[in-house]
Amino acid sequence: MVGELDKWMLMATARAPTNIAVIKYWGKRDETLILPINDSISFTIDPDHLSATTTVAVSPSFQEDRMWLNGKEISLSGGRYQNCLRELRNRAGDFEDKTRGMQIRKEDWKKLHFHIASYNNFPTAAGLASSAAGFACLVFSLAKLMNVNEEIGQLSAIARQGSGSACRSLFGGFVKWTMGNQANGSDSIAVQLVDETHWDELVIIVAVVSSRQKETSSTSGMRESVETSSLLQHRAQAIVPNRILQMEESIKNRDFSSFARLTCADSNQFHAVCLDTSPPIFYMNDTSHRIINIVEKWNQHEGIPQVAYTFDAGPNAVMIARNRKTATLLLQRLLFYFPPSPDHDLNSYVLGDKTILQEAGLESLNSIESLEPPAEAKANVSSQRHAGDVSYFICTRPGKGPVVLLEDDEALISSQTGLPK
Amino acid sequence: MVGELDKWMLMATARAPTNIAVIKYWGKRDETLILPINDSISFTIDPDHLSATTTVAVSPSFQEDRMWLNGKEISLSGGRYQNCLRELRNRAGDFEDKTRGMQIRKEDWKKLHFHIASYNNFPTAAGLASSAAGFACLVFSLAKLMNVNEEIGQLSAIARQGSGSACRSLFGGFVKWTMGNQANGSDSIAVQLVDETHWDELVIIVAVVSSRQKETSSTSGMRESVETSSLLQHRAQAIVPNRILQMEESIKNRDFSSFARLTCADSNQFHAVCLDTSPPIFYMNDTSHRIINIVEKWNQHEGIPQVAYTFDAGPNAVMIARNRKTATLLLQRLLFYFPPSPDHDLNSYVLGDKTILQEAGLESLNSIESLEPPAEAKANVSSQRHAGDVSYFICTRPGKGPVVLLEDDEALISSQTGLPK
Repeated sequence: MVGELDKWMLMATARAPTNIAVIKYWGKRDETLILPINDSISFTIDPDHLSATTTVAVSPSFQEDRMWLNGKEISLSGGRYQNCLRELRNRAGDFEDKTRGMQIRKEDWKKLHFHIASYNNFPTAAGLASSAAGFACLVFSLAKLMNVNEEIGQLSAIARQGSGSACRSLFGGFVKWTMGNQANGSDSIAVQLVDETHWDELVIIVAVVSSRQKETSSTSGMRESVETSSLLQHRAQAIVPNRILQMEESIKNRDFSSFARLTCADSNQFHAVCLDTSPPIFYMNDTSHRIINIVEKWNQHEGIPQVAYTFDAGPNAVMIARNRKTATLLLQRLLFYFPPSPDHDLNSYVLGDKTILQEAGLESLNSIESLEPPAEAKANVSSQRHAGDVSYFICTRPGKGPVVLLEDDEALISSQTGLPK
Repeated sequence: MVGELDKWMLMATARAPTNIAVIKYWGKRDETLILPINDSISFTIDPDHLSATTTVAVSPSFQEDRMWLNGKEISLSGGRYQNCLRELRNRAGDFEDKTRGMQIRKEDWKKLHFHIASYNNFPTAAGLASSAAGFACLVFSLAKLMNVNEEIGQLSAIARQGSGSACRSLFGGFVKWTMGNQANGSDSIAVQLVDETHWDELVIIVAVVSSRQKETSSTSGMRESVETSSLLQHRAQAIVPNRILQMEESIKNRDFSSFARLTCADSNQFHAVCLDTSPPIFYMNDTSHRIINIVEKWNQHEGIPQVAYTFDAGPNAVMIARNRKTATLLLQRLLFYFPPSPDHDLNSYVLGDKTILQEAGLESLNSIESLEPPAEAKANVSSQRHAGDVSYFICTRPGKGPVVLLEDDEALISSQTGLPK
């Protein structure tokens, strides 16, 4: 299909955030429906910094469903895509545009094909939950296009079938994914605990850690943990339910100390279960360990937690600072221990909300060079610096859920050709 | 005290091995008596390669108990030394040497003082259970000197009060430390499962891994795990008892596949519990992980386990090869991935039983240089080489328990001065 479309085309474009779990999801009780063995809680990341944007288009000219991710065509034949497309087509509504004389009846959607273009505003391979943002955005934008008349919680159950944690990306703020009891997964959905304005002091710094190791995918990793870890079921049944209640309380009360304690403990326990898997799975590396030690020593030195950390299925650290002041102190520490390597400029080393860099007084490579070791380093940790061990940092904050983008220039598909712009 | 002794002196010298747990001890139910929360099983390492040698001397000339470790005087004031000395003095027997006209009645031992000199035939700081060998040797040699009339199991309960795992070093072969039920610890003793001749095909290769990290001591680490890990009690109560039974069976039947599966799983679970501790404890580093991946990929490639691995409270790998042939193949792999750094000679890089090096055809740095990547590397792991990440290797085997050394030149204390030679 080259050149102009010979028939009408409809489009919808949306942007959906990624999310980071603070009580972790690890282990499925149903591989096809993607039903978890425990509840999980996440926060949504500001889509300005970490999000997927997706345009979905439909036209009688399209011969088959096609998708392009970051400009490259990918296959939609996988079960996860197929499940999402089927579930949404089953729930499609009637569409009518009288000014353009267009009408699609709900049963027609099954005969029509989609073109889907998506891109992430962050490196896909960096291990930053790109599939969560991607599937949330796919489901959200298709639901808009097809006039799906469902609550967002029901859409989350569809996104869940694309990528488990994608269901949590359908809301902003703090989100709980309830595991549910139904065999068909209809009650395994995301619910918003609080929106992004409830606890707006929090600041997030992500350290994207350099790694040459090929990592175990989270899909195969959690399958192996379910099959071989003797600690996993105990965690899911005896530990997580109580942590979920405590985490909900600490979020409700904006109790950072409790939030930090639970977040760190649950991240570490998730990685403990990975290590208890056979063969063992190592997602964290020496740099990840070093970051944990830096945060732990600092928290210990201050007497109350300043920063929480959490690690997903990779070596990257996601750190949550109590407030902006703490975030600047954290960034000073991080840049002291992990200065950019000589070939880096600061602008490409600290991404996202760069105002924190200014507040930290770190606007040049020289100012990083001349950072003093933090107070707690003298007593406790080595003040060795490790240039090159972190690829870059992203400064961000908790943010809102998916939104529809209405401007033509935000669409990723050309209305002339029906193909990615 | 300089110059000649003015009164008689009696001496005893012994050598005791170190041991490596295959079902791990981690967590005390009584900190003073050193009573564990679960049974553990270890093998004893050939004392030719990893052992402590200790001379204990007694003389009316000695004014106080004194000890020298590796030539340097250390304090005996700690509770662990005091407990061992008190328990042994309480059990001392009468001593009589008619030819020299010497007699010590059992009650006299409480008034006499000891000089103790000990050294390890391996680096103390390398994290190779030097305290286990040391306390086993201290207790064994003092028991000989004082004519303590107790079974070796009862001596193990005394050594346990010096360093928990020391109790297992009082026997050769495979040894079980039963946790016991008594509050006074009298039934928390070591028992030999089989002696060192039962499974004499096994070959041990230890990789001493370079590390600049200051490590958490096992004493404080296990205390923190008991206090903060929510997985530890589940492991001790619900998982270890069954693993102990399976491990006893696999040792009895020389079932290497089962032995390897249990050994690796239990090492990984111990480190999982460390990671589940708050703050988390990391004993393994990237090199440790790399060694695990190399062994796991090879075992997977061969279909049945060739090698088991286990890691104590540090980054060093202890690998157990099925037999000598497997050990040579393992050494080829290890030297392929971890060649000596340029400033090393092979003689100081592979220690212990060097005949395995010959059998592996690796008698020169050139032969290591020209090693091919192993077959399984092509499909699965990177064949990147990491010179300098391992400090050295030790080739050894399971070995016998403590022995008395009778030759004068083996004594570490001078019969003239009463001081270390």
